[in-house]
Amino acid sequence: MTRVTQPLSGDCRLDRQLAFVLEIDRLKEVLRRSRRINDQTRENTAEHSWHLVMMAMVLHEHWPESLDVARVMRMVAIHDLVEIDAGDTFVYDEAGASDKAAREHAAAKRIYGLLPPDQAREMRALWDEFEAKTSPEAQFAGALDRLMPLLHNFHGEGRVWRENGVVAAQVRALNERAFAGAGRLREFVHELIDEAVERGYLAQ
Amino acid sequence: MTRVTQPLSGDCRLDRQLAFVLEIDRLKEVLRRSRRINDQTRENTAEHSWHLVMMAMVLHEHWPESLDVARVMRMVAIHDLVEIDAGDTFVYDEAGASDKAAREHAAAKRIYGLLPPDQAREMRALWDEFEAKTSPEAQFAGALDRLMPLLHNFHGEGRVWRENGVVAAQVRALNERAFAGAGRLREFVHELIDEAVERGYLAQ
Repeated sequence: MTRVTQPLSGDCRLDRQLAFVLEIDRLKEVLRRSRRINDQTRENTAEHSWHLVMMAMVLHEHWPESLDVARVMRMVAIHDLVEIDAGDTFVYDEAGASDKAAREHAAAKRIYGLLPPDQAREMRALWDEFEAKTSPEAQFAGALDRLMPLLHNFHGEGRVWRENGVVAAQVRALNERAFAGAGRLREFVHELIDEAVERGYLAQ
Repeated sequence: MTRVTQPLSGDCRLDRQLAFVLEIDRLKEVLRRSRRINDQTRENTAEHSWHLVMMAMVLHEHWPESLDVARVMRMVAIHDLVEIDAGDTFVYDEAGASDKAAREHAAAKRIYGLLPPDQAREMRALWDEFEAKTSPEAQFAGALDRLMPLLHNFHGEGRVWRENGVVAAQVRALNERAFAGAGRLREFVHELIDEAVERGYLAQ
């Protein structure tokens, strides 16, 4: 276990912040189903979160609504911190989905709670916004969180879809919701799924 | 190799952006000397970059000068992209340091050059700023880039220092530069190094 209780400075606020910084190191140990493109090893949630930060920087111009891009970056950086306790729930895992919210809410309380109260509240509000998908920032963040696994699956020739028995109708349904307001990216995702079916990466 | 040349959309600008997004997946394969706290496996540069983004969000209030925090987040997200081609050069590796700049500049040209020209220029300018350490944002980013390995080494009981024959004078000299303008964080880093020596994690 991370020794987050070790005293490190005489400053209570800095100590809490450092305890948080040390604790979140464990997100690097949480493995996702998605596989890295080049070596096809499973990616972890910390590196996935970094990838979404980069995508927010590069792709925001394609979102039809105006966005606070810095807010999107903060949101995707923290969006999966709860997986330190709750683990990664595969998006097509219906059994895992049944208690996902309860597991993740308990995790959010503990992990954000390591921070000074004002920062804990701010980060929790950002995560709640991401989960609710009501703001343009949260909708764009959610679309990026779906786009990268699609790209990973496509460039891994559908391995993760086949390993988990995922078919095209499931992928279309999930992404229809995630990319509803996504303009040009929505078209691209439709084309990518069609192409994946045509190449035999994804079963009809 | 990543198949970044595969056509993906009919939109030339989006295609370049996606080629970049796919290519940078390889930063997840670049291993650093630093080891994760909990399981002591070596961390990779993508997850390290995410950790710095999180630290920028949480610790910026301790920097004595006012900062554009979003700019720091963008800077640390991209600061090690060149390692995809140039690899990670250990900070105490003098032989590696001799051609590090040349290797990294060639890498920057290729990797940022995958993007549309305006984004390539913007990202390259951000990396040049990080390297030059002339702005408060670059100085804070540089301090974070030193603070996390210190924390990793301390919480790994000095394993990486011992494995690489690093002694206290080297650590002090490196960090004296990095934390020169760091206010409260500078004090903390001095205390942490002293404590590491006292515990026998770091040789005098």
